[in-house]
Amino acid sequence: MIAIDWGLSSFRAWRLGADGAVIAAMAAPRGIRGIGPGDFAGVLEELLSPWPGAREEPALLCGMVGSRQGWAEAPYAPCPARAEDIAAALMPVPGRQGSFIVPGLSCRNDGVADVMRGEETQILGLLPALGPGAHMLCLPGTHGKWAVVEDGAVVSFRTAMTGELYGLMRTHSTLAPVMPEGDGEGKGEGDGEDDAAFAAGVARAGDAGGLTHHLFGLRAGVLLGDVAADRLPAFLSGLLIGHEVRALAPEGRLVHVVGAPALTGRYARALALLGRQSVAHGEETAALGLAAIAHARGIA
Amino acid sequence: MIAIDWGLSSFRAWRLGADGAVIAAMAAPRGIRGIGPGDFAGVLEELLSPWPGAREEPALLCGMVGSRQGWAEAPYAPCPARAEDIAAALMPVPGRQGSFIVPGLSCRNDGVADVMRGEETQILGLLPALGPGAHMLCLPGTHGKWAVVEDGAVVSFRTAMTGELYGLMRTHSTLAPVMPEGDGEGKGEGDGEDDAAFAAGVARAGDAGGLTHHLFGLRAGVLLGDVAADRLPAFLSGLLIGHEVRALAPEGRLVHVVGAPALTGRYARALALLGRQSVAHGEETAALGLAAIAHARGIA
Repeated sequence: MIAIDWGLSSFRAWRLGADGAVIAAMAAPRGIRGIGPGDFAGVLEELLSPWPGAREEPALLCGMVGSRQGWAEAPYAPCPARAEDIAAALMPVPGRQGSFIVPGLSCRNDGVADVMRGEETQILGLLPALGPGAHMLCLPGTHGKWAVVEDGAVVSFRTAMTGELYGLMRTHSTLAPVMPEGDGEGKGEGDGEDDAAFAAGVARAGDAGGLTHHLFGLRAGVLLGDVAADRLPAFLSGLLIGHEVRALAPEGRLVHVVGAPALTGRYARALALLGRQSVAHGEETAALGLAAIAHARGIA
Repeated sequence: MIAIDWGLSSFRAWRLGADGAVIAAMAAPRGIRGIGPGDFAGVLEELLSPWPGAREEPALLCGMVGSRQGWAEAPYAPCPARAEDIAAALMPVPGRQGSFIVPGLSCRNDGVADVMRGEETQILGLLPALGPGAHMLCLPGTHGKWAVVEDGAVVSFRTAMTGELYGLMRTHSTLAPVMPEGDGEGKGEGDGEDDAAFAAGVARAGDAGGLTHHLFGLRAGVLLGDVAADRLPAFLSGLLIGHEVRALAPEGRLVHVVGAPALTGRYARALALLGRQSVAHGEETAALGLAAIAHARGIA
């Protein structure tokens, strides 16, 4: 079968053997953004064309492809959710025999809604490596997730829009004109590599005044010559991640950070600076999670 | 003389008598944004043309007109600052006899820089009404100020970019597509008038998880049908102001809120919901402040 993680800005696919092992992998900068409602089937066959016979294989898709803007909307499954619960809630792909879209998850904290779409698959893929008991996971990103898993179930989670806020500050705010050139996502190579500025941002998050006060301080610091403009991106990254970690990482608990190395490394640094222990995991766990869901559903 | 508050997006002027009393007032939507470096003199004469003889009168200008993007840069004067300190640091207007630009103020809290430009004049104008002793002032806006004044001096202040963050969320974030039409500044009539949603936002600011988590909750709430989209602007306004007030309003201290009624009313509501007492003041105190500075300098 074919396992696919199709997000807003990227497409990743894995060809899986009968035992769930990865036979081949591909990635393309072809997210769902900009794909018209009726064009998903055609775009998918085009993307999979390097793999002979892929057209006839069942596919399991996760990510924003299952959102309102995607191929077909797969309503969120409520927490707590195991692989079996997600498998039971799969949404058939219109017009593609034996293929399904994975639903996202929803939960409520203090009565307030939260949602994820795509990360549930990465989490499920990581579970076998974590073993039984309760674990704290962090999946940083545009909308980063902090999830509690227990004995094979995603129990609850909280989202922080840290990555999105970073991009807004970097490209649209009054800080943008004083920032050096760079990528607006904060995920790339150029930003956040200044360890000292990053650490200063993490520390600043603990001062009085709150986030919106700390953000203005970057502008004031440049105006008064306290802060060099080329240190701002790393400082901003540290400030935002510092606020996120302080608010969402429970003290005294090991945090499993899942994602691309540039980003997990930054979170590991912030967690260490704030006295939290962490372990980093690669984001290829998505393929394992899709295999687990397929197995639970009896696909392939 | 002519007293002028010339900000990024608006121009306000008052014609003052020898005793500092306002003889006439005008306002125009003609901020410094978009005025070329050499064009300020011409634009000012055009704006003042309804007042016969204004061309020959000395003018005192405050606001962003004194920034790097303005007519001439007036370096920030350090806190603590009295009217006399500001008067001593006035910057002559190039090519306009007897006219000056008011410098902004700078200060440091926990060693971190903060700046204001324009608000110092409003604060000075309010001081006579407050009397001696220490007072806490709040001047909400794009970059809202919380200032401590004592016996005629601005002692220190902190800025929160609450208004700017509101605009970014309203117009550029992933919340923007689910928001109803409205002004992006959060200062107008349309937003923030839903008292119950505003109060719910203020209360939400006290929950666990931090601001970037609370912001994502608005999106999740709409996706799951918990929150009606037309209540989001008022909820967002309450959430951001709630975070600001919790972080910056000291408990047990009367807060003097200075600004336009729509905005000061919103802050007074948030302060009351969080158990803080407040008094609202109109923003016309800028004319009084400019008169005080002119008096200290011996102008007019």
